[in-house]
Amino acid sequence: MRKLLLFTALSALGLTSAYAQAETAGAATTDAVLDVKFMIDNLWILVSAALVFIMHLGFASVEAGMCQRKNTVNIMFKNVFIVCIGAVGYMLWGFNAMYPSDWAISDVFAVGSGLTGAATDAEASRFYLSESGEAAYTIWSDFIFQAMFAATAATIVSGAVAERVKLTSFMIYATILVTFLYPVTGSWEWGTGWLDKKDFADFAGSSLVHAFGGFAALAAVIVLGPRKGKFTKDGIKPILPSNLPLANIGVFLLFLGWFGFNGGSVLSADAAGVSFVFVTTAMAGFTGGLGAIATSWIVLKKPDLSMALNGMLAGLVGITAGADTIPPYAALAVGSIAGVIVVLSVTFFDKIKIDDPVGAISVHGVCGIWGTLCVAIFGTTEGVTFGVQLLGTLSISAFAFITSFAVFYAIKLIMGVRVDEQEEHEGLDVAEHGSPAYNDSTP
Amino acid sequence: MRKLLLFTALSALGLTSAYAQAETAGAATTDAVLDVKFMIDNLWILVSAALVFIMHLGFASVEAGMCQRKNTVNIMFKNVFIVCIGAVGYMLWGFNAMYPSDWAISDVFAVGSGLTGAATDAEASRFYLSESGEAAYTIWSDFIFQAMFAATAATIVSGAVAERVKLTSFMIYATILVTFLYPVTGSWEWGTGWLDKKDFADFAGSSLVHAFGGFAALAAVIVLGPRKGKFTKDGIKPILPSNLPLANIGVFLLFLGWFGFNGGSVLSADAAGVSFVFVTTAMAGFTGGLGAIATSWIVLKKPDLSMALNGMLAGLVGITAGADTIPPYAALAVGSIAGVIVVLSVTFFDKIKIDDPVGAISVHGVCGIWGTLCVAIFGTTEGVTFGVQLLGTLSISAFAFITSFAVFYAIKLIMGVRVDEQEEHEGLDVAEHGSPAYNDSTP
Amino acid sequence: MRKLLLFTALSALGLTSAYAQAETAGAATTDAVLDVKFMIDNLWILVSAALVFIMHLGFASVEAGMCQRKNTVNIMFKNVFIVCIGAVGYMLWGFNAMYPSDWAISDVFAVGSGLTGAATDAEASRFYLSESGEAAYTIWSDFIFQAMFAATAATIVSGAVAERVKLTSFMIYATILVTFLYPVTGSWEWGTGWLDKKDFADFAGSSLVHAFGGFAALAAVIVLGPRKGKFTKDGIKPILPSNLPLANIGVFLLFLGWFGFNGGSVLSADAAGVSFVFVTTAMAGFTGGLGAIATSWIVLKKPDLSMALNGMLAGLVGITAGADTIPPYAALAVGSIAGVIVVLSVTFFDKIKIDDPVGAISVHGVCGIWGTLCVAIFGTTEGVTFGVQLLGTLSISAFAFITSFAVFYAIKLIMGVRVDEQEEHEGLDVAEHGSPAYNDSTP
Repeated sequence: MRKLLLFTALSALGLTSAYAQAETAGAATTDAVLDVKFMIDNLWILVSAALVFIMHLGFASVEAGMCQRKNTVNIMFKNVFIVCIGAVGYMLWGFNAMYPSDWAISDVFAVGSGLTGAATDAEASRFYLSESGEAAYTIWSDFIFQAMFAATAATIVSGAVAERVKLTSFMIYATILVTFLYPVTGSWEWGTGWLDKKDFADFAGSSLVHAFGGFAALAAVIVLGPRKGKFTKDGIKPILPSNLPLANIGVFLLFLGWFGFNGGSVLSADAAGVSFVFVTTAMAGFTGGLGAIATSWIVLKKPDLSMALNGMLAGLVGITAGADTIPPYAALAVGSIAGVIVVLSVTFFDKIKIDDPVGAISVHGVCGIWGTLCVAIFGTTEGVTFGVQLLGTLSISAFAFITSFAVFYAIKLIMGVRVDEQEEHEGLDVAEHGSPAYNDSTP
Repeated sequence: MRKLLLFTALSALGLTSAYAQAETAGAATTDAVLDVKFMIDNLWILVSAALVFIMHLGFASVEAGMCQRKNTVNIMFKNVFIVCIGAVGYMLWGFNAMYPSDWAISDVFAVGSGLTGAATDAEASRFYLSESGEAAYTIWSDFIFQAMFAATAATIVSGAVAERVKLTSFMIYATILVTFLYPVTGSWEWGTGWLDKKDFADFAGSSLVHAFGGFAALAAVIVLGPRKGKFTKDGIKPILPSNLPLANIGVFLLFLGWFGFNGGSVLSADAAGVSFVFVTTAMAGFTGGLGAIATSWIVLKKPDLSMALNGMLAGLVGITAGADTIPPYAALAVGSIAGVIVVLSVTFFDKIKIDDPVGAISVHGVCGIWGTLCVAIFGTTEGVTFGVQLLGTLSISAFAFITSFAVFYAIKLIMGVRVDEQEEHEGLDVAEHGSPAYNDSTP
Repeated sequence: MRKLLLFTALSALGLTSAYAQAETAGAATTDAVLDVKFMIDNLWILVSAALVFIMHLGFASVEAGMCQRKNTVNIMFKNVFIVCIGAVGYMLWGFNAMYPSDWAISDVFAVGSGLTGAATDAEASRFYLSESGEAAYTIWSDFIFQAMFAATAATIVSGAVAERVKLTSFMIYATILVTFLYPVTGSWEWGTGWLDKKDFADFAGSSLVHAFGGFAALAAVIVLGPRKGKFTKDGIKPILPSNLPLANIGVFLLFLGWFGFNGGSVLSADAAGVSFVFVTTAMAGFTGGLGAIATSWIVLKKPDLSMALNGMLAGLVGITAGADTIPPYAALAVGSIAGVIVVLSVTFFDKIKIDDPVGAISVHGVCGIWGTLCVAIFGTTEGVTFGVQLLGTLSISAFAFITSFAVFYAIKLIMGVRVDEQEEHEGLDVAEHGSPAYNDSTP
C-alpha cells in the first residue's frame, strides 16, 4: 500500500518508467533523489549554454567597438554567420567527431556525423543516462553546450582579420575551421584522445578553444597581411577604436559568459566545484584587468581602457585551463601575470608588423598557452607535468596554425582573401553590404 | 526515534508543515524529495522570467537601432512604459482573466481581477501546491513569468508604429492591448478555453504572443499610415537604420531571452524537456539566420545584416509553437524556411505600402502563423491536426487584428494617433520629449 | 544488502564521505536529499553573483550614457577599475571584516584579513557546512556573491563625481571606500553587529549598499564642487546626456541584475522566498518607472526618458530593504512613491547646487532611506519599528557621509581631487586617457 502510494506520487513527477523494477519504497526514493540531482546538474549545463551563447554578442560588440566605424556591419555580419553556421556544422559533423565512439586514426582523428539515435528521438531514449546512474545531463544539453563553445574558436579569428578580409572567403574559411578543424584537437583531450591519455589538463579550453583560435588567427593574419596604412615607413600608425562603450559592453558580456564557459565545464552543479570555479575565474579576470592597467600605465604612459578590457579577457583566458584546480590566491597571480603578458604581447606583435586589430592573438593565443602552463605551475593535480602541458598546448597551437594557414592560403590561391584597396579605404560596410552601421544624417 | 531525527532534519529545511501527517520516515523522505524538486522547478521559472524580462531591452534596442536617430528616445520611452504598465495591468486584471477560475462567456472570455488570496498573503498559503504534489512553482513565479510574456505583445506593435505615432495615443492603446485584449486569446488556449479543448497546440506562443502582436501591429499600421517620404511616386525610399550595433545587441538579447521564453514554458526543470527545447529553439534561430542570409543575398543581391538579424528572430518565432515536439532535424527546416519567409514577407509588405520600420509584422505575425502550422507539419503530437492549427492561428490573428483596429481607430477619432508632419520631420525625440538621444556637440 | 546498494548508488554521486556514519538506508537517503538541496541553494547564489556582476556593466553604461561624450572613456575606465579592485580588496580584507569571527570593537568594528582556511584549501573543507545541515552554499559562493555587492558601493559614487574628478585621486578614494569603509557598516547588520541586535531590517541593502553609496557620493560631490558651467548666474544650465540608448541598456541591465541582488539575498533557492522577492522587486521597479513618468510629466512638462529610467532604479532601491516582507500590493506603493521622490529629489539637489550628473544621490541615497523606512511602514515583520529603521539608515548614511568626506578631503589636501579647468573643458578622455570614446572620422 505504502509502495503503491509512493509509485503514485512518483508518477506525478513523470518519472514512472525508472521505477518499474524498483522493489521497495526505499529504493524508489533513492532513485527519485538521483533524478532530482540529474535535473539540477542538467539545468546548470543549459544555463551555462545560454551564458556561452551571449559571449557571441560579446565578441561581436568588442570587435565592432575596437575597429573602425566603416567596418562595423561587416564585423557583426561575420559574427552572426559564425554562430549560426558553427552550431549547424557542429550538429551535422563536429559533435560526433569531437566525442568519437570510433576513431578513424586511433586517438587522433574521428569522422563526424549527424546527431543520431537517442539525440533525435524524443521518446526512445530521453536521457543520456549511463547504467551507473552517474548521468549529469541529457545528450541535448551536452550538444548545445558544446556547440556554443565550438563557434567561439572561429569568432576569435574574425576579430584578428577584421577590416580587410573578403567576406565570402572568410565565410568558407570559418565554416571549415569550426566544423572540421576545431573538433580534431578537441578530440585529443575532451574526446579521450592521445593528450587525455598523457594526463594533459585543460579544464575549459585555454588551449583547446583559446590557443586554438589565437594561433589559427595568427596564421590567417600572416596570409592576409596588415591593414593599409597601419605600418608606414614613418612607423606604426595607431588606428583608433570607433566605439569604446560598445567594446566595454562586449568585454563585460564575455566576462559574464565566462561564468558559464568555465562554470559549466564542471559538467554538473556540484556545489564545491562550481563555486570554486566561479571564484578562480572571476578573480583571475579582475586581476587581469589590474595587471594590464598597471602595465599599460608604465609602458604606454597612460591609463588605457582598451588594455584594461583586454587585461580582463587575458586573465579569464589564463585561468580557463586550471579554474578547477588552481587555488584562489594563485588565481590572483595567474590573472595579474596574464594582464602583464597581454600588454607586452600586443606591443610585440605590433612591432613585428603582425596586424591584429583587437589583440586576439595575444589575448587568446599567447595567454591561452600561459594558462595551460599555469595548471602545472600553480595547480595541485597529481600527474600533471609542465612537460606534458607544454607539449599539449604547443601541439594544439601548431595544429591550429598549420591547418589554418593551409586552408586560408588555399582559399587565397583560389579566390583571394582580401578586399581590394578601394574597398578597404571606403570601408567594408558600404562596399560589401551596401549599408553603413550608423546613419546620423537627421535634421 | 529514527522518525524524530528525520523530522528534526527536515525542520532544518524549513519544510516542517508538510510533514505533519506523514506516518513513516520513508514517506517524509519522499515528501522531502518532492520539495527539492519543487525548488528547482520553481527556480527555473524564475530564471526564465528574468530572461524574458531582458527581451524588453532587446526589443527597445532593436527598434531604436533599426529606426532613425531622431526617434530613438521616443522608441525607448514607449518600451519602458510598456513593460511597466504591462506588468501592473497584468497584476490588476490580466493574470486572472487569462487563467480564469470562472468564465463570463464559457471558454471565450473571463473577467479579470487583482491577484487575490494566496498570492497576496505570504503566510496563509505560501505554495501554489495542488493536493497531488504536482506543483512545479509558486503562484508568484507563475505570475511574474506570465507578466513578462504579456508585455511583449504590445512591444511588438511599438516597433511597427514607430517614428510617427502620437505618444499619448499609443500609451492608451498599448495599455488596453496588453491588459484587456491579450488575455482573451491567451485564455482560449493556456486558460483551458475553446482552443485548448480542440487540441490546438501552441507551446510557448507562436500564435498567442507573436501572431497576436504581429496582427495587432498590422491593424495599427493600417490605421496609422506610412511614414512620410517612405512611399513616393518615384518608388520606395529606404529609410536607413540609425544604429546597427544597437540592433545587433537587441537581437542577441532577444535570442538569449528566448531560452527563457521557450525553455521556461516547459513549466518545470524537467531535464529532457528543457534540454530538448533549448536545442530546437537555438537551432531554429541559427538556421533562421542562415535562411535569411541566403535569401536576402539572392533577392536583394547583398549580404544584409538587418535581414540576417530578422532571420534569427523569424526562426525563433517559428519554433515557438512546437519547440517541445518538433524533432531537432525538423527544427533546422522550420528555422530555414522562416528565414526565407521573413525576407519575402518584408519585401511584400513594402510592395503593398504597409510601412513597418522594423519588420515586426513579418517576423512575429507571418512567422507566428508559420510556426503554428509547423506543429502539425513537423511535430509528433497525437491529436494535433493541420486544420485546427490553422483555425487557431487565424482565430487569434483575426481577433488581434480586429480588436486592435477597433481600439486604435477609436483613439484616432477621439484624439488622433499621429504626430503632425512638422514633428515627424523634426523627429519625435525633440518634438515630444525635448531631448535628442545622442549629444555629440562636445569640443 | 539494501544498504550496500544504496551506498553504491550514493557513491556514484560523489557524496560518499558524508555517509560514513550513516546507520540506515533511510538516514542515507535523507542526507542525499539534503545534499541535493544544498546544490540548488548554492547554484542560485552563484547565478545571483553572476547577475550582480552584470550590474557593473549596467552602472558603467548608464553613467557613460548620461554624461558628456568627452568623458566616456574616463567613466568606463573607473568602473572597470572599481569592480577589479573591489573584488580583490574584498578578498584580502573586506569579507572577513564584514562577517567577523572576532570584533576589534564589539559589534562595531572588526579587522579584516585574507580568505583563510577552508576558503583556500580545496581539499580540507570543501563545504561551508554547519553541523546542523542547514548550509545553503559554500564559502566561495558566499564570498563571490558578497564581493560583487561590495564593489557597487564605490560605483555609485563614481557616477556622482563624473566629468571632473581626478582619476588617480578617485582610484585611491574608491579603493579605501570599498575595501575599508563599506565593510564597517556592513558588519553592523549583516555581520551580526549592533544594528542586527536592535532588530534593524535591511534585507538586501537599501541602507547598507545604496544609502551608503549615495551619501558617500554626496560628501564627495560637496568636496569636489559642481561641473564648470552647470550653475551659472543665469541659472542652471542643463548638460545633456550623450547617449541615451547606452543609458537605457545600463538601466535594464541593472534591473536584470537586481533579480540576483535581491533574489540571491534570500540566501537559498527557497521557492516561496525567491519568487516572492522576484515579484516585489519587479513590481516596485515597474511602478517606480510609472511614478517617475507621471511626476516628471507634471513637474518638467515633458515625458522624460532619463527620469523614467531613474524611476525604475528608484523603485528597485526602494524595495531592496523589504523585498522579502513587503506584500506585492504594497510594493506597488513603495515603487510609485520612490518614482515620485526621485524626480523631486533630483530637482531639489539641482536647486541647492549639488551637481550629480546621473542622479546617484537621489536614486541610491534618498530612495535608500525611503526603502529602509518602508520595511516599517509596509512590512509585516514582528519587531521591526520605524524608530530603529530610522536610526539604522541615518547611522549608516551618516557614517558613509562623514568617512567619505574625511577621506576625500584628505586626498584633496594631499594631491587634489579635481582636474584642471582646461582638462575639464577638453574632456577627460583625451586629457587623462589620450583617447576619445568614439572615432567617427572615417571617409
